[in-house]
Amino acid sequence: MLIDGRHQRTIWLENDEPGRCVVRILDQTRLPHEIVVVDLTDLEAAAVAITTMQVRGAPLIGATAAYGMALAVQADASDEAVDVAYERLMRTRPTAVNLRWALDRVRAVLRNQPREQRLARALEEAAAIAEEDVRICKAIGDHGLELIRDAARAKPAGEAVNVLTHCNAGWLATIDWGTATAPIYRAQEEGIPVHVWVDETRPRNQGASLTAFELLHQKVPHTVVADNVGGHLMQHGMVDLCIVGTDRTTRGGDVCNKIGTYLKALAAKDNGVPFYVALPSTTIDWTITDGVRDVPIERRSPDELTRMTGRTDDGRIETVSITPAGSPAANYAFDVTPAHLVSGLITERGTASASEEGLRSLFPEAGRTPAA
Amino acid sequence: MLIDGRHQRTIWLENDEPGRCVVRILDQTRLPHEIVVVDLTDLEAAAVAITTMQVRGAPLIGATAAYGMALAVQADASDEAVDVAYERLMRTRPTAVNLRWALDRVRAVLRNQPREQRLARALEEAAAIAEEDVRICKAIGDHGLELIRDAARAKPAGEAVNVLTHCNAGWLATIDWGTATAPIYRAQEEGIPVHVWVDETRPRNQGASLTAFELLHQKVPHTVVADNVGGHLMQHGMVDLCIVGTDRTTRGGDVCNKIGTYLKALAAKDNGVPFYVALPSTTIDWTITDGVRDVPIERRSPDELTRMTGRTDDGRIETVSITPAGSPAANYAFDVTPAHLVSGLITERGTASASEEGLRSLFPEAGRTPAA
Repeated sequence: MLIDGRHQRTIWLENDEPGRCVVRILDQTRLPHEIVVVDLTDLEAAAVAITTMQVRGAPLIGATAAYGMALAVQADASDEAVDVAYERLMRTRPTAVNLRWALDRVRAVLRNQPREQRLARALEEAAAIAEEDVRICKAIGDHGLELIRDAARAKPAGEAVNVLTHCNAGWLATIDWGTATAPIYRAQEEGIPVHVWVDETRPRNQGASLTAFELLHQKVPHTVVADNVGGHLMQHGMVDLCIVGTDRTTRGGDVCNKIGTYLKALAAKDNGVPFYVALPSTTIDWTITDGVRDVPIERRSPDELTRMTGRTDDGRIETVSITPAGSPAANYAFDVTPAHLVSGLITERGTASASEEGLRSLFPEAGRTPAA
Repeated sequence: MLIDGRHQRTIWLENDEPGRCVVRILDQTRLPHEIVVVDLTDLEAAAVAITTMQVRGAPLIGATAAYGMALAVQADASDEAVDVAYERLMRTRPTAVNLRWALDRVRAVLRNQPREQRLARALEEAAAIAEEDVRICKAIGDHGLELIRDAARAKPAGEAVNVLTHCNAGWLATIDWGTATAPIYRAQEEGIPVHVWVDETRPRNQGASLTAFELLHQKVPHTVVADNVGGHLMQHGMVDLCIVGTDRTTRGGDVCNKIGTYLKALAAKDNGVPFYVALPSTTIDWTITDGVRDVPIERRSPDELTRMTGRTDDGRIETVSITPAGSPAANYAFDVTPAHLVSGLITERGTASASEEGLRSLFPEAGRTPAA
């Protein structure tokens, strides 16, 4: 997608020379105020980039972890070092299911490889993961486009389709295109007018700082609103459909996404607004059904809630505390939206109902239900 | 209630000498970082205090408007000046119904009074409004206490009752005690352990900056959470009941309160958590039934969303922008929670069902339904 009119991805291999490999990422903690590129040259840098959310979003976490494995192998290609890297990267974020998927995939290609081949194989696999993600996101965009087209047909000609999204499941969360935003960008390409309500997404403000940044650079009309506003907008017919992403989708169609997604899904249900979730099939966890019971919810530092970073009128970047010193805070990062609140799951193979039957109809080859 | 251990109200008459009247308020835009008292000496200062939310909360807005009428009369006691003051103050905030109620009440006592009596009469009436509010809030606390007591009985002995609240319907929104917080403070007096989940309440952060400040000074255990979190907490049995305030309650029990209240009510309904609204009967608008259709929703400056004020680590108060320059934002200040999502309305006369029958059972003398 575009930054300042130039095509850009969120992660790329800058140098593949053995011993001098450099993977580059956009530091998303500095957006929207500063566009900063960070060099990753070793395992620890990749792990820290994930933990501190310099990179975030399930697909991008997966790709970064894959490149992190390559950087680890560059330093030490032994089986032991591969295991250490796998465990180190696995610990970075507990919720995203395709972190494990990407790590498993790289580890598998390294198995039984001579050590001197391992760096090249790991880099190839990381690149393949990234390229596949781009293709998958584009396909999600194509399928989601049909939903936006249908919404446009139901409105007076030329009137913008109002899409509400939560958090950033945009191209910054993937390699390119995004998941929830891909249908929006495809609609833009097709000349369908779209306006996006961007949930601020406290406490880390991924909507206000990342989704708004994307849409601004992509020239898609949008309005930032507080997370509290979506219900009111839906009560007044100001939202035609919701599209959000997901970090983990259960076999039964429950959706674990950024905290607050569940509240928007409830409002959509209450007001008859379609609520779609866009996802690469890598985020489906075929081992569990009940998301509320079985998905571990990451608790992050209360500082993310109590401290806020922005730019002052004279251009300095400052961090300020916004709660009384002494008041405790808690920071639950995700919640689970039960499948019955989800109108459909937009995947790279099409849009399915949020149910095991729906998912299996698109992914018949996926792991069978384990014995109860 | 207490600030730094000292009893304090949100508004008081500091000097009643004609020509030198001073009304004092706590400047709530400076909390929680600074405790600043502001002198109001004329109509304009009172109007600005309401508009800029130095004072906020339906009851406190009413009392400030009443004192504002007195300050106007001090400068000019003519009928014309009274009318100008009434109109000026009425324009300060569009949603709070007891702004009109307080203004009508002061204007009524001035009618047919000789000019030289008017300042004294206006000050008396403003003081009466303030004293009545304290009594009303205390009574709301007594009635709401029973709901918390019931919740405590349903839990293992000694385990804290978890109350979730949104925005600040605390003593800072009233003269003393608060509305939604009064039951909590009464429970504390009675030795019932209570823990409060404090919604941050974007975009103005009244929860994180005001409710947390109150509870901290009152030594009530509490935890600040992002507005997005309540649904997750309720899904996991971590909320025993919700208590919020209201700026306007329709005859049918629809509740217009701070934006985002509706989303919490949906989550409460979905998880079987009781959702109560605490209100003085002055916030009931007997002229309307359908809140979603008929309550005008104030839109405030987008700056409230895009700019955030806090204190830096070295103690300076700074304001920072948190969205990309160029991304539009919208700031809807209230939403309407339909009566069917409300478990009960806690008033100064007891707890009623959220319905016309419920309200009329407690307030049989209130204005009859206008002809359709």
